[in-house]
Amino acid sequence: MKKKNIAILGSTGSIGTQALEVIENSKDYFEVELLSANSNVELLLAQAIKFQPNAVVIVQQDKYHYLKDKLNLYPIKVYCGMEALEQAVQMESIDIVLTALVGYSGLGPTLKAIEAGKPIALANKETLVVAGELVTKLAAEKGVNIYPVDSEHSAIFQCLAGEFHNKIEKIYLTASGGPFRGKKRDELLNITKAQALKHPNWVMGAKITIDSASLMNKGLEVIEAKWLFGLQKEQIDVIVHPQSIIHSIVQFNDGSMKAQLGLPDMKLPILYALTYPDRILTDFKRFDFLNYPSFTFEKPDLETFKNLALAFSAMEKGGNSPCVLNAANEVAVELFLQDKIGFLAMSDLINNCLQKVEYIAKPSHQDYINTDLETRKLAFELSKN
Amino acid sequence: MKKKNIAILGSTGSIGTQALEVIENSKDYFEVELLSANSNVELLLAQAIKFQPNAVVIVQQDKYHYLKDKLNLYPIKVYCGMEALEQAVQMESIDIVLTALVGYSGLGPTLKAIEAGKPIALANKETLVVAGELVTKLAAEKGVNIYPVDSEHSAIFQCLAGEFHNKIEKIYLTASGGPFRGKKRDELLNITKAQALKHPNWVMGAKITIDSASLMNKGLEVIEAKWLFGLQKEQIDVIVHPQSIIHSIVQFNDGSMKAQLGLPDMKLPILYALTYPDRILTDFKRFDFLNYPSFTFEKPDLETFKNLALAFSAMEKGGNSPCVLNAANEVAVELFLQDKIGFLAMSDLINNCLQKVEYIAKPSHQDYINTDLETRKLAFELSKN
Repeated sequence: MKKKNIAILGSTGSIGTQALEVIENSKDYFEVELLSANSNVELLLAQAIKFQPNAVVIVQQDKYHYLKDKLNLYPIKVYCGMEALEQAVQMESIDIVLTALVGYSGLGPTLKAIEAGKPIALANKETLVVAGELVTKLAAEKGVNIYPVDSEHSAIFQCLAGEFHNKIEKIYLTASGGPFRGKKRDELLNITKAQALKHPNWVMGAKITIDSASLMNKGLEVIEAKWLFGLQKEQIDVIVHPQSIIHSIVQFNDGSMKAQLGLPDMKLPILYALTYPDRILTDFKRFDFLNYPSFTFEKPDLETFKNLALAFSAMEKGGNSPCVLNAANEVAVELFLQDKIGFLAMSDLINNCLQKVEYIAKPSHQDYINTDLETRKLAFELSKN
Repeated sequence: MKKKNIAILGSTGSIGTQALEVIENSKDYFEVELLSANSNVELLLAQAIKFQPNAVVIVQQDKYHYLKDKLNLYPIKVYCGMEALEQAVQMESIDIVLTALVGYSGLGPTLKAIEAGKPIALANKETLVVAGELVTKLAAEKGVNIYPVDSEHSAIFQCLAGEFHNKIEKIYLTASGGPFRGKKRDELLNITKAQALKHPNWVMGAKITIDSASLMNKGLEVIEAKWLFGLQKEQIDVIVHPQSIIHSIVQFNDGSMKAQLGLPDMKLPILYALTYPDRILTDFKRFDFLNYPSFTFEKPDLETFKNLALAFSAMEKGGNSPCVLNAANEVAVELFLQDKIGFLAMSDLINNCLQKVEYIAKPSHQDYINTDLETRKLAFELSKN
């Protein structure tokens, strides 16, 4: 495999730091070209010194001078702000852009990278949830491949290697069920932040961990899968598999099913997105069947975990509905993490926003920006009642 | 997919009849060019009339005139004997040869088909068990692909689509464990033919059903996998999975694992071997996770089922050892089906033959023929003591 120059947007987050671990362990294959962070300037600085990228971008502008001073002696370009990031991702020298920003903020830079013809390793599912039609259309126009990093979508993508000419009949996205699997609504009334932040199988950032507990993460993944693999609602199913070993399953039109499996470790899907169609030797811990004598499967409980049903319905409605869903959810999670609303109130708030924000059937990029802002405002207001 | 002309060697057996079902249901894709049977002349006749092949071969010569008379009015060539079969498989008009003969008899015609450059859909695992080195070397020389039909090897092959350039770290062949899974040696002393012929998940011919009960089938599959996928002993593992839904698993050198799964139905691997790299729409019954809430896994019991250990050791020893293993097993199964030896005595007989037949490190085709004959003679003699 030819050495690849990697840009990591969101290098100080959970995916970003794991990506740098992967790169460090496979130095023969990768060079770090660009690192960016929203606000964690200390970690960005340490990463820059260690990996010596061509450029770094700190989005929060007030941290620019500190970073610039500290990197004064190194041949590293230092920029700040979202606009600088959107320019930096277009650098000639970048071979692939890993988008690991949190939430809606990933959309702008991802679009810019696609415009510049850069392949995308997509860890920021919200990009496709919010604006899947826009993003996939632009990627098709520019001949840009989008490689999924989400473990479920990476599983599907791995199963599709050598099969892109064959018809997908349906996919099964597996869900661990999160920390509250099996619980009913009355048991979830007084759930605390600490309980929701304890995921049984995966170590992830706070936002996605709450989304996993509420099953919104699976809902967002359903919408992401629709756009990544060109599927209809009826072709996407969710199956709860608490052991998180089978990461997802494709069923082809001959009835054959393929699954990708392994220990839950995000480093593998990160690496595969960067090396596809090749695989390289790793020392990741191997799976052993004797440690997992049983894989179990069950239907998701859509009565208790309303978010998953809301996501399916927003996907079916289309237009700006998934954008509303996502923005309302981002606010709901933030309010829950601030102890301002309860666990079950998150779904109610999202549902309210979906009812109230004006529907736009064919949104432009500007429409998405407006919908996102309007929904956030509305969600904050509604939460005060 | 371009229409393909299919030759089926062993069309009256379990795989042969299922292959004809598959072909009948996908008439747009296939034409039957050649059918052959060992002795079941009535069924061969019925198949010939229904599918109108270019030619049919009945191996047992005494049935030739009957068949010839009955097909007198049809434009179907009728031949008899093994030599005729070995010529017929080389017919210009054949696109792919499905080898579904039983046991050692598959070797000769398979070699002839490969010599003529015909792709092989291999249902006759004994061909590779007996003479894997010879067969795979000839196939490589002739640029001939061998597509596995065994469900486990088809699973591996399906998982390798788009991955042939990547390194296999290991494979797991799944085993149902057969009807006697969990039993100990003293419980197997007085097992009857009828009990051994009841496979929990698969409907198959008598020989392979006994092999499944004794785990020799898995042993033969281990050796078959070695040759099909170019693996070393350490790279092949067997895991008991009683539900027979996961048909086998590949682990790549990055640690990622891919599995192929579905309901146990030989029609799928037969079809895939004939359509690869394409898949075509089928009405095969689809798998539903809700009917299989649990997949379980356990270590095979090599103490009780000695055949699997014998196969691993014959594979490691190499040379003509797998040929001895196979011939001794064919005799042992025959004697067991005739109530002449007990279930556990099969392993003893095979082990005895492996000890006694002269080892040849680099056997020629003639050496295989001699080893096969010698082993059969020895096995019959030993069984009388």
